[in-house]
Amino acid sequence: MPSQTYNEFIQRVKDINLAASIEGILEWDQETYMPEKGAETRAAQLALIAGVSHEKLIDPEFGHLLEKVEREADPDPLVATNVRELRRIYNRKVKLPTALVQEIARTIALSKEAWTQARRESNFAHFAPHLEKLLDLKRQVAERIGYKTEPYDALMDEFEPGARAAGVQSVFEGLKADLVPLVQAIKTAPRQPKTALLERKCPQAAQAAFGRRVVETMAFDFAAGRIDLTTHPFCSGASPDDVRLTNRYDEHYLPMSLFGIMHEAGHGLYEQGLLVEHMHTPMGMSVSLGIHESQSRMWENLVGRSRAFWVNWLAPLKAAFPTLADATLDDWYFAINTVRPSFIRVEADEVTYNLHIMLRFDLERQMIAGKLKIKDVPAAWNDTFRQFLGLTPPNDAEGCLQDIHWSMGIFGYFPTYALGNLYAAQFFDAARQALPDLEAQIARGELHPLREWLRENIHRHGQRYRATELVERVTGQPPSHRSFIEYLTRKYKPLYGF
Amino acid sequence: MPSQTYNEFIQRVKDINLAASIEGILEWDQETYMPEKGAETRAAQLALIAGVSHEKLIDPEFGHLLEKVEREADPDPLVATNVRELRRIYNRKVKLPTALVQEIARTIALSKEAWTQARRESNFAHFAPHLEKLLDLKRQVAERIGYKTEPYDALMDEFEPGARAAGVQSVFEGLKADLVPLVQAIKTAPRQPKTALLERKCPQAAQAAFGRRVVETMAFDFAAGRIDLTTHPFCSGASPDDVRLTNRYDEHYLPMSLFGIMHEAGHGLYEQGLLVEHMHTPMGMSVSLGIHESQSRMWENLVGRSRAFWVNWLAPLKAAFPTLADATLDDWYFAINTVRPSFIRVEADEVTYNLHIMLRFDLERQMIAGKLKIKDVPAAWNDTFRQFLGLTPPNDAEGCLQDIHWSMGIFGYFPTYALGNLYAAQFFDAARQALPDLEAQIARGELHPLREWLRENIHRHGQRYRATELVERVTGQPPSHRSFIEYLTRKYKPLYGF
Repeated sequence: MPSQTYNEFIQRVKDINLAASIEGILEWDQETYMPEKGAETRAAQLALIAGVSHEKLIDPEFGHLLEKVEREADPDPLVATNVRELRRIYNRKVKLPTALVQEIARTIALSKEAWTQARRESNFAHFAPHLEKLLDLKRQVAERIGYKTEPYDALMDEFEPGARAAGVQSVFEGLKADLVPLVQAIKTAPRQPKTALLERKCPQAAQAAFGRRVVETMAFDFAAGRIDLTTHPFCSGASPDDVRLTNRYDEHYLPMSLFGIMHEAGHGLYEQGLLVEHMHTPMGMSVSLGIHESQSRMWENLVGRSRAFWVNWLAPLKAAFPTLADATLDDWYFAINTVRPSFIRVEADEVTYNLHIMLRFDLERQMIAGKLKIKDVPAAWNDTFRQFLGLTPPNDAEGCLQDIHWSMGIFGYFPTYALGNLYAAQFFDAARQALPDLEAQIARGELHPLREWLRENIHRHGQRYRATELVERVTGQPPSHRSFIEYLTRKYKPLYGF
Repeated sequence: MPSQTYNEFIQRVKDINLAASIEGILEWDQETYMPEKGAETRAAQLALIAGVSHEKLIDPEFGHLLEKVEREADPDPLVATNVRELRRIYNRKVKLPTALVQEIARTIALSKEAWTQARRESNFAHFAPHLEKLLDLKRQVAERIGYKTEPYDALMDEFEPGARAAGVQSVFEGLKADLVPLVQAIKTAPRQPKTALLERKCPQAAQAAFGRRVVETMAFDFAAGRIDLTTHPFCSGASPDDVRLTNRYDEHYLPMSLFGIMHEAGHGLYEQGLLVEHMHTPMGMSVSLGIHESQSRMWENLVGRSRAFWVNWLAPLKAAFPTLADATLDDWYFAINTVRPSFIRVEADEVTYNLHIMLRFDLERQMIAGKLKIKDVPAAWNDTFRQFLGLTPPNDAEGCLQDIHWSMGIFGYFPTYALGNLYAAQFFDAARQALPDLEAQIARGELHPLREWLRENIHRHGQRYRATELVERVTGQPPSHRSFIEYLTRKYKPLYGF
């Protein structure tokens, strides 16, 4: 039985996260339905809510309660998890003076505008002073939060608790060593896909309907979620009972919306799979961005881009899109697995994608450490890009200005995308072991056994285990790039015939 | 130049109302797009925000600031208005202990559920104990807030600041004396409209498109607003830059959506017409529900149901709805002005509508005063209904259980609907005097001059003048039922030929 002190503590935790959940709805509304002129009030509303949440967290009374429940040392893992994670968050937040937090918020608002213009004009110099200032502020954050080895760790910890740059680097090095020859082999392979198939016209309404059918089959609960249209797809919401997916459409490139919505639904299934009884407490919240991304990438790539998946879905696809009536399973499967080094991360295939991430990880780590000067970022980007992907970006808009993250002061986030890809392959291997019939199920259009397995092994645990621990518990192995490379090799070798 | 104290005061006022504006968006989302299972979290979010707003308001520091700015006695009407209105609200809220506020919130949550079931089953007894408890709590509210004559005044003051039951009663008595014979004359008139015209099939999408065109012509700013689908239409939002209208559709009864959206757009134009520079302070907020309703009813009835309006819009109507191709201006104009006593308030025509309101005003005033026992409400409703409208409700679902208001503890709100009708007629008379060309403008489809006049004379003043004062300033007359009765007589005598 949790103590009365703990109950009081947890009520405050719920209020803190409930306030944050309001931000989720307001941000979703901003991207979906808010009239354009509403932006100024929306910014003020979001700042107000963020303030409410922050004040409730750094309230000295909350600090005292936290100390009390720590002294009680309740061994119940549920209690222990909630106390441990709140201590982590409290320690981060309480070290940041309100003036610094507010200056960062103000700087980001200006920086995002400058970045938008800089990208439009492919003019890095216009963005550079903002990036400089944000880096300086984020270095201050890192110093205040503290770190053992390098300041980057303090920042990455917000997104991937427990992860450290040195550890990520060692994983990435192994990954890169295996990935570069694989990309090279694919590039020079004798067989190549018929990509024109992907550019056949598919009306937006039919794409939306088809995507929804797939997501329904994934057992996403539409009584507790929905899909809307936005410029960039995302997954947001307020609770496991209210999960909002968004998507976008290109009538001459079906894969964007199709794999886009499977990706977001993967995130959404994770959110819906968290236990409602622990809502708005760490035991009912996702582990890390890396684990979150493992769910979206598994559904998008390991399921959605698998041959088995299309054994079932090719016929419905042809029925939904008459322009694809002549597509064969082999041609379609090959086309949706086209690998080709390209400039834009969000459009990259699953083989080259991680190279885009490693580049960003390298550069932003040097930037935070002060080893890479801002003025040298474009040249460093292009040099590294050539080295990793064999291409030279034609301009900074398609180079170092392409992502919004840095303009929002988000450093240490990118590596979680690549970690997600690796975790996804490891989890999928474990799922195949646990469900020997998995591939046949997918080929019959039965996706719910996989969802149940994910729910049982990953979703329902909330933050009970840190990412690394969770991977070890579920897969029996520490995080590594091996499953991922094995998966790619197993898939792409026969496809491309190298 | 406002003092530094005043600036500090007004910043707090803005935060209080900014928090309330978040409720506007969350409530809108709940009625439009929220997945059904999201209701529980939404209730918690709304309670959290209401608490934030309330705490900021009753904060003793805010009370001290308020006293300070009162002592400064700045004669600037902008400052004086904001100070006066915050004193009014502060005095109301600070008298209510948090325990009472929370008990009311809990009681309402249960009461709404009970009412929904009671209405579905037409079973008043199921709702009665909840109504009893809410009345008791609301009487406590009235006693704490205080009043000179009767407790009803303290409750009505929330919706129509400055209005008193005795004054409303005297206006209503004059109105009723003129209205009852008018209804009788129409009932027995030689000419009657061809109402079948209204039941021709009009597809929902075409209704939505047509309604939007009308609202665009009213100069509603769609960059600062939108229209969505809900079960019951309403106007909500967050600021003059973010105004959300909703509507509903019956494919066999076009007038519902058409006049429904003109009504909501009337509310919306008021919100959009408030000055952005005073956003979230009384100088940038609407005067009262009565004045708000005057705007919606003016556009719905005095404009939308006028002959002049259809001189312009009949051709577009026929083009949009082929089933109406044979409608003549006379037949259409007569049909949309059908007067017929009926049971449901929200479906009532503009002549009989106020009788529905007077009935509610009479009953709820007696209920609050303890003169009408809860168990006697259905009989009292039916007796009064017979007396006012000459009909006996077939059951309580179509009688005393039809409105949601009482289940939400809202007493003293209904009279504002009737006041809105009277104000609308008075304002429209003033507009006709100020714009001699008004009818011809409307007949040419030019609606913006009326909107400009409303903006200039009503909207932009925010809460500078109380409702009564505003009516006198704009029309040169105190509030009265005369303009309204003159308008009805002028319109319906020639139509029905009595």
